[in-house]
Amino acid sequence: MRETGRDSRTAATAEHLVIAQSCTMAHQCALVSAVMKKRYFDDLKMGDRFKSEPLRVTEKKLIEFAHKFDPQMFHLSRKGAGRTIFKGLIASGWHSAALTMRLFVQTLNFAEGAIGLGVDKLRWPNALRPGDMLTVETKILDARLSRSRPRYGIIRLRNVTTNQRGEVVQTMLASAMVLRRKQQRAKR
Amino acid sequence: MRETGRDSRTAATAEHLVIAQSCTMAHQCALVSAVMKKRYFDDLKMGDRFKSEPLRVTEKKLIEFAHKFDPQMFHLSRKGAGRTIFKGLIASGWHSAALTMRLFVQTLNFAEGAIGLGVDKLRWPNALRPGDMLTVETKILDARLSRSRPRYGIIRLRNVTTNQRGEVVQTMLASAMVLRRKQQRAKR
Repeated sequence: MRETGRDSRTAATAEHLVIAQSCTMAHQCALVSAVMKKRYFDDLKMGDRFKSEPLRVTEKKLIEFAHKFDPQMFHLSRKGAGRTIFKGLIASGWHSAALTMRLFVQTLNFAEGAIGLGVDKLRWPNALRPGDMLTVETKILDARLSRSRPRYGIIRLRNVTTNQRGEVVQTMLASAMVLRRKQQRAKR
Repeated sequence: MRETGRDSRTAATAEHLVIAQSCTMAHQCALVSAVMKKRYFDDLKMGDRFKSEPLRVTEKKLIEFAHKFDPQMFHLSRKGAGRTIFKGLIASGWHSAALTMRLFVQTLNFAEGAIGLGVDKLRWPNALRPGDMLTVETKILDARLSRSRPRYGIIRLRNVTTNQRGEVVQTMLASAMVLRRKQQRAKR
């Protein structure tokens, strides 16, 4: 992965906005990511904020996820879920987490990815329901060089996932290891 | 959901072992859960431990999950992943979390489900790789009645997910709201 060295943040964001409009499936988005400008550790600093494109959660996908990973009655069928405390279908919290990851990955578009080190304070203050439109807002809380791996930096971030009414459906803190630019590594 | 009142833990476990042998797909397991004895808050106490059946993670499913939720190069293809720090395909941490939830739900088999309140200290000490066989061990750390919802109790638990070599691939702490037995609620 070569890096030209010019500040690419503005260009990458504009490009992302254009391309993302026609980006409806995850594998298409992965392809789009490959041609987009990649983001390195050195492009991030404490206080930076990002907002994802919106993503709709369909009833079909919500139920499909539940069958595979969280087969509980409030996730599996409209009828069964109607009899529970939620009075209707809600998404698994792990589905919210997985969709948040997808939006985070697409938005930040890290060179060689973000290696998850850990997650804390994962909460679901409001239920995620079929048809909801999710957006993820990311705030960089801290950015420091890795002591053990000089090619990498470590970021701490907060992801807040909201629905189309601005209600928060998930919050979390995470740490991730992210590749540094080559020329920055050489300067160290 | 009616409850007979007899202590059903031993019976449920034995039944589970028999049925689980022929249980290979998540939706089958959901059906199996429906006929198995359900577990209530009152069946749990601090220090209780549970161990799930094993579950194999195939390369196909690992890649499928990544395309949908975590399209990063160390999750998407064998070739791309070979060039990363992991020197081969690894599962998304959110895939580990989702599979852990499935095993947890199948093993504990809560009446009307476990409503996730939050997760902390979610960590992935070792990579989860294609073909790995996962097992989840659950320890109940605390069990108390809900102050705001008298029909429910709140449990705190630790889930440790290991591979076939006993290496820990995920650890987490979680809190969940679980339904109480009717007669126990009446006694309060």
